[in-house]
Amino acid sequence: MELFYAYETSGSTVRLSQEESQHCVRVLRYRVGDEIDVIDGEGTLYHCRLTDDNPKGAEAAVLSCQKNWHSHPYHLTIGCCPTKNNDRFEWFVEKATEVGVDRIVLLIGERSERKVYKTERAQKIALSATKQSLKARIPEIVEPMTVKEFLKGEIPDQVGNDGTVMPGTDRASLRMIAYCFEGETPRTSIKEALAGLHGTEITVLIGPEGDFSPEEARLAIDCGYIPIHLGPSRLRTETAAVTAAEAVYFRYL
Amino acid sequence: MELFYAYETSGSTVRLSQEESQHCVRVLRYRVGDEIDVIDGEGTLYHCRLTDDNPKGAEAAVLSCQKNWHSHPYHLTIGCCPTKNNDRFEWFVEKATEVGVDRIVLLIGERSERKVYKTERAQKIALSATKQSLKARIPEIVEPMTVKEFLKGEIPDQVGNDGTVMPGTDRASLRMIAYCFEGETPRTSIKEALAGLHGTEITVLIGPEGDFSPEEARLAIDCGYIPIHLGPSRLRTETAAVTAAEAVYFRYL
Repeated sequence: MELFYAYETSGSTVRLSQEESQHCVRVLRYRVGDEIDVIDGEGTLYHCRLTDDNPKGAEAAVLSCQKNWHSHPYHLTIGCCPTKNNDRFEWFVEKATEVGVDRIVLLIGERSERKVYKTERAQKIALSATKQSLKARIPEIVEPMTVKEFLKGEIPDQVGNDGTVMPGTDRASLRMIAYCFEGETPRTSIKEALAGLHGTEITVLIGPEGDFSPEEARLAIDCGYIPIHLGPSRLRTETAAVTAAEAVYFRYL
Repeated sequence: MELFYAYETSGSTVRLSQEESQHCVRVLRYRVGDEIDVIDGEGTLYHCRLTDDNPKGAEAAVLSCQKNWHSHPYHLTIGCCPTKNNDRFEWFVEKATEVGVDRIVLLIGERSERKVYKTERAQKIALSATKQSLKARIPEIVEPMTVKEFLKGEIPDQVGNDGTVMPGTDRASLRMIAYCFEGETPRTSIKEALAGLHGTEITVLIGPEGDFSPEEARLAIDCGYIPIHLGPSRLRTETAAVTAAEAVYFRYL
């Protein structure tokens, strides 16, 4: 099954980008009247008939559509520090997309060696992995921000003097930080943490090669993040991030 | 923690290969008298003192050793068909080694586009991933063989007319084949299959891009393999193979 991505969809018409049109018309030789399958990148699959086979801007008429096509029963945000080697981070983007992730936030930790990352490549990889793995929703790739900026964007639950809890603004029902520091911080395994999960909103933070700084970890814990470990194996940053996605995938399998 | 690999270990002395000696002496500048950590690739960690800092063949005296260092509580064989693109297969070798795998068998399926593969590269990658992830046992990389050759090497359990079971020669207590064919073959999820596992010997077979042939799948099932799926996501060959390793990893976490 071949999927195309429509950058624009009205109720009855979808428009392919120049790149997608090129692929559809020049490479795969689809012509007016042929039926094609198109995703909007937001969860909907459109079964269409090609009405304009212009390789610079093809259009198709919607015959039928299916919302939440091949969607997964959770909403997973992985905040991950880009690796020194871009290929490794982009490999994580591809694999996490295949397995299932909704939002990838590029985090810059105090100990990150890589402080900048251009998200265009990751976006391309996420799109092609989405199509290849037959999904209709493309994971959102969030521009780099520091760990502290990301955490400050979340307001933790407030506990009043009488013990009543005022829920914070973060939508995640389970927030976890994979923290390597031995000793000082007791950590539960991601499997245990997920076993106790009731909601479907999950956030996991994965640090850089040098781990999160103690300040970052403390701030995350203050924001309601549970310090977790990913088991006995010492994993590279990108392997840890994919392993977190796999843990969530298997939790719902 | 830096690990070196000893190609030869007597009770009291370990010898590093030329490449490891080079890295130890030239790059990391260890000298006679310095303490180093060495693995034998078979599960034992040796804490040693360097007695010969020859960059072409360093030697060290064993101070203490630890068997089954950082070992996992199962024995996992993954039979996987090499991908068209070698990098993808070698990425699986690296990641499965980090997470935990004991034997990687290169399978050539009837539908494999790649019929040959030189295992030297995979062996190098497995060694460096073993050291990087702080393990002492290097996964065995088995030279390519056809799916049928691999299965013929296993004698399935024999069930007598009276229903008594004569155990076959395959050591695996759980044998699974990840088979994509929809419909015809009912499949259980790898998570379910692992949940019912009592032993610790696990084999998973992952097919090529074009899947196993029906004959290969039938033969595997006749040999006692359970047809499994890896969940709703359509995964690339190498992603499926890593996902299988992750499923086993989490089963024992």
